[in-house]
Amino acid sequence: MAVGAPSHFPLEPVAGVRLGTARASIRKPGRRDLVVLELAPGTRAAGSFTRNAFCAAPVTVAKEHLAAVAGEPRLLLVNTGNANAGTGEQGMRAAQESCAALAQLAGVPAQAVLPFSTGVIGEQLPVERLVAGLPDALAALDENGWDIAAEGIMTTDTRPKGASRRIVLDGVPVTLSGIAKGAGMIKPDMATMLCFVATDARIAQPLLEAALARAVDASFNAITVDGDTSTNDACILAATGMAAHVELLDPADPRLAVFEEALGALFIELAQAVIRDAEGATKFVAVEVSGGLSREECRRVAYAVAESPLVKTALFASDPNWGRILAAVGRAGVADLDVSRVEVSISGVRIASRGARDPAYTEEAGQRVMSAEDITISVALGRGDVAATVWTSDLSHDYVRINAEYRS
Amino acid sequence: MAVGAPSHFPLEPVAGVRLGTARASIRKPGRRDLVVLELAPGTRAAGSFTRNAFCAAPVTVAKEHLAAVAGEPRLLLVNTGNANAGTGEQGMRAAQESCAALAQLAGVPAQAVLPFSTGVIGEQLPVERLVAGLPDALAALDENGWDIAAEGIMTTDTRPKGASRRIVLDGVPVTLSGIAKGAGMIKPDMATMLCFVATDARIAQPLLEAALARAVDASFNAITVDGDTSTNDACILAATGMAAHVELLDPADPRLAVFEEALGALFIELAQAVIRDAEGATKFVAVEVSGGLSREECRRVAYAVAESPLVKTALFASDPNWGRILAAVGRAGVADLDVSRVEVSISGVRIASRGARDPAYTEEAGQRVMSAEDITISVALGRGDVAATVWTSDLSHDYVRINAEYRS
Repeated sequence: MAVGAPSHFPLEPVAGVRLGTARASIRKPGRRDLVVLELAPGTRAAGSFTRNAFCAAPVTVAKEHLAAVAGEPRLLLVNTGNANAGTGEQGMRAAQESCAALAQLAGVPAQAVLPFSTGVIGEQLPVERLVAGLPDALAALDENGWDIAAEGIMTTDTRPKGASRRIVLDGVPVTLSGIAKGAGMIKPDMATMLCFVATDARIAQPLLEAALARAVDASFNAITVDGDTSTNDACILAATGMAAHVELLDPADPRLAVFEEALGALFIELAQAVIRDAEGATKFVAVEVSGGLSREECRRVAYAVAESPLVKTALFASDPNWGRILAAVGRAGVADLDVSRVEVSISGVRIASRGARDPAYTEEAGQRVMSAEDITISVALGRGDVAATVWTSDLSHDYVRINAEYRS
Repeated sequence: MAVGAPSHFPLEPVAGVRLGTARASIRKPGRRDLVVLELAPGTRAAGSFTRNAFCAAPVTVAKEHLAAVAGEPRLLLVNTGNANAGTGEQGMRAAQESCAALAQLAGVPAQAVLPFSTGVIGEQLPVERLVAGLPDALAALDENGWDIAAEGIMTTDTRPKGASRRIVLDGVPVTLSGIAKGAGMIKPDMATMLCFVATDARIAQPLLEAALARAVDASFNAITVDGDTSTNDACILAATGMAAHVELLDPADPRLAVFEEALGALFIELAQAVIRDAEGATKFVAVEVSGGLSREECRRVAYAVAESPLVKTALFASDPNWGRILAAVGRAGVADLDVSRVEVSISGVRIASRGARDPAYTEEAGQRVMSAEDITISVALGRGDVAATVWTSDLSHDYVRINAEYRS
């Protein structure tokens, strides 16, 4: 049910990063459900985590460990099949014990291991089976392990998601590669979005953190399937510093802009890949809101449209039901919105202007653009010069089927 | 697909109120699509209208007319089949012309007529056909016309919705009757909720307005099917003053509490009837949030749960998927929520406590309560003593089918 082209594999290896997977029978036998990312000594990492108050145990532990090692972790430990969320104190101990076990095998402090879990919520993590799988994962560590790791972090994803970028700094090639999983709901529980991006760039920790925050804000914080923020969302950006260019230290360094542009493009590619694989998705939809007074109000309008069940079912039906879009814009809570200035277009066809159907609009033109797999809904608010874009999917029969009928 | 028992008809007549319907072929021939409510001279009315910025032309005109006659309208004019929304200047003229035509026939000022429309959005109102139907509607005016009017305002509703209450003030019987339509989406457009309630009570205008605001807040402002506020929502409370009790003038009058209690119960009955008939609904769900610091944060949590596609699909599947409920609570944006104090129960069965599955919970007990048609989700936040309740329906295959596959 995925929409559009799959990710382009193989990914580029990143100097200082090795990845290994194993089958640990976390939930079901035979599945590749354990992934280890090894980072060279001195690698700096920044993290972005769910804001859900019910954040999962591994999220809490990953944040604590990342702070304890001053942003220099050595290993990322990922399991699928169990989210270790809603598991209370026992879940916290399970996350810590998993880290300690891997740390001992690898000869690093326990706090140098960051844990990530995705899968069923509310069941205790089977620590013994996870730990038993660690030697296999370590034995499999490989610079070219990105592709198999992208598969290893999948749950109900229908295809692996990854992206690479190459740039040149000081005449030296610098690589960025990343993998992501999730969005949509997983059976029987919730979407858990995980993303791991690494680069061999040499970059100061504060700049790395700022770059991650900007990249996430423009990518993963701009997608929605259903508005249901997961308990396990986590994203890590690691920089090994193995590339031989002069270190990025100055926020005004023009090379930083080159780096951030590549990073931003890579994040958007991963975030869009997640939406293209959203459960039940038959459409990939960009909601572009322009002419706002602030980015916040543009995003609010974009999310109101992107999360409206009415708009999403109309998208599934390829139905140019512009009234539903107008109604969603109108209820987004924009103060003093002058509806007579609002214009709405679908993939370049203007459908509404001055608060009513555009005089030049024809149902045939609307039907034509709505039939495509990739659709852009553009809303011009006519009150300022700020814009924002959100990406989403449609609401299909399969969405309900996947999230209602199955319970594994 | 409606859930639970239908409304109890016939409704009680209200002295000073007559209702008539007609078939005007607004959208399709043969349908009862025109309703007129006649109010005796001196009737005071209060209105509550959609906050959607794209409010429909009749909403704008009804608000203007109600103010122009100082809260004393004489006729309510309702059509189905066409929402007269997203119709620009022409739509405004159509609403005004409809009022003027009815006013002329009835011998009242045009501003004494309040217009209400529900149905397809973005198509111009067929004023000529509407006006041609007015004589039939006037000829049919009857004190016992409530039941047929409840049918006349239906669009995709599967059954009419009405309720009556009798109270005694100063030894005099006082009647309250009301009808409502909508919620869920109408094909191919959006939910439009209309509600008309009348009483023969004698009550001062400010008290009437305050009573309406309180009743709506606790009923129609506490239901959600999909979060999609309509462009046409409107609710009118009219008091004819024909009952012979001493007029309610003092906000501290204990008789006012008696009146408001009956009014509140009637509104809740109508609002719940709307949810019980929500498109595709197979469950009627109350989300009760207690232990909050403010009503606003309780409502925010209740709406996050009630509008979560994950929770709604789990309800459809009769799946006690408490992790989805916890996740929705966690993302509701309650500042400094201590998840270790949160408790969740479903219809009296405690499923989660201290941020994890309750030790005493069994899947069998959860399955049993989730299989019922009527379900109560109780969330105790453990941080204050304020509570709020929201009513909602589930997200079913039929919801998607109705809103995606059909376009009439």
